Amino acid sequence: MGAPMARNLLKAGYPVQVWNRTAEKAQALAKDGAVVCGSAVEAVSNADFVITMLSDGPTVDAMMRDKAVTDALKPGAIWVDMSSTKPAEARVQADYLSGLGFARLDAPVSGGTKGAEEATLAIMAGGDAAAFEAALPMLNAMGRATHVGPTGSGQLAKLANQAIVGATIAVVAEATLLVKQGGGDPDAMREALKGGFADSRILQLHGARMTSGDYTPGAMSTIQLKDMVNIVGEGELCGIELPVSKSVRDRFAYLCNELGQGEKDHAALFLELLARNGLST
Amino acid sequence: MGAPMARNLLKAGYPVQVWNRTAEKAQALAKDGAVVCGSAVEAVSNADFVITMLSDGPTVDAMMRDKAVTDALKPGAIWVDMSSTKPAEARVQADYLSGLGFARLDAPVSGGTKGAEEATLAIMAGGDAAAFEAALPMLNAMGRATHVGPTGSGQLAKLANQAIVGATIAVVAEATLLVKQGGGDPDAMREALKGGFADSRILQLHGARMTSGDYTPGAMSTIQLKDMVNIVGEGELCGIELPVSKSVRDRFAYLCNELGQGEKDHAALFLELLARNGLST
Repeated sequence: MGAPMARNLLKAGYPVQVWNRTAEKAQALAKDGAVVCGSAVEAVSNADFVITMLSDGPTVDAMMRDKAVTDALKPGAIWVDMSSTKPAEARVQADYLSGLGFARLDAPVSGGTKGAEEATLAIMAGGDAAAFEAALPMLNAMGRATHVGPTGSGQLAKLANQAIVGATIAVVAEATLLVKQGGGDPDAMREALKGGFADSRILQLHGARMTSGDYTPGAMSTIQLKDMVNIVGEGELCGIELPVSKSVRDRFAYLCNELGQGEKDHAALFLELLARNGLST
Repeated sequence: MGAPMARNLLKAGYPVQVWNRTAEKAQALAKDGAVVCGSAVEAVSNADFVITMLSDGPTVDAMMRDKAVTDALKPGAIWVDMSSTKPAEARVQADYLSGLGFARLDAPVSGGTKGAEEATLAIMAGGDAAAFEAALPMLNAMGRATHVGPTGSGQLAKLANQAIVGATIAVVAEATLLVKQGGGDPDAMREALKGGFADSRILQLHGARMTSGDYTPGAMSTIQLKDMVNIVGEGELCGIELPVSKSVRDRFAYLCNELGQGEKDHAALFLELLARNGLST
């Protein structure tokens, strides 16, 4: 994700200093005009915005808690964490950076590698409104940014996104199986529903994977499971029960942990529904 | 629904004989060129296609089992039932008419009054392929018809449609509540998710109803409950468990029967989620 996002910043005329744990990944951006750095400290030096795009909250923490990194931050620099993390992690990070005098935004994205390449990412931002306004032109070079609320709200919106994706996959699986077992053609069903209230990209794309049996990811079921765990966990932190999300979480857990299908696309939740009903593919 | 559908048939040049239990409803179509009939027997006489658009399967049955009606059918007439009924009812009706020498299609619709008026209904058809081909130009004057499979498949596709609608409303409610309780702005969340994988008309329209608290139907929760009951029931007939549909059915039952909110739009499932969590609006 990071590489195409950096390319779109360069295309929009922003100078970009890049660093990656795997040096070749950063090096590949040199031909696009990026300044390739030998360390994170070097990459953040003199930057107006520090952008992190990492695997999870603890990985972002590790970088942010490195005193050499924060010592190198330019006064007034804004840290924009575009990784998908837990809202609670975002809040702790914001407090930490605030204590050092820096603003921070959470700005996770949806839209995948394709959205990153085409600069059409949905960017969901949480944090101080003034920091968001300052970062907005830069964020919009990578997609379409919306301010959802205070720190953590970007991550909340990302979890909302993933809850909807997971539950829609679950019910598309049920719709597909119902039509199939009732003697109809699920491919024709999807065609019939096109443009109506039940239509969605999930119905068309993930539904097609269920009938073709092609579960090449896409988005892996293990990642969807991680998201569902975070959704239910954040709900518990807020003191609320989210019954559909909880049930979908349990089913992705069964798919990944009991059926061993975690490496497959999240549309493979259809396989859990088949297994539950004693049916084979 | 019937009136705008009849108007679109007239606009497309089809002669239409109309009958309704409430005479004024049929009479209103006279100015559009319809022949207003005093009875169902009169309406079906000499018709190539008999179209029923009634409240449920038993109501269609009552008309179809009236010997005076079937005696009046023209040889070769095709009965097109556009009502939403149970797939099993569709199969029994097709057998009955077949015994009298007539073909029958189930062709329920999605798209509401607006779709009916604009001739953009999604029409989901089940039945004999030749009968479908014969009816296709006529059906397409009212929307977009797709043949989903043998008798009952149109009703199966409609149930699939309603299962997706119901479950999507349920998870949009959870996404809305999660963002709200976490301190974010659900309206901004919907804006942020626009165009992404989680986006849908349900997210935008029903999500907006949840935050505005305007539950003017739209589609009433009692109707959504009826659909959810039929979805789970048809699954049981097919020997399959549909866990999301079942849970959503139980929650609409609670909304309608315990909270007494059945007359509200189906987006009011948000109120069930609030009640479950001990929260007020």
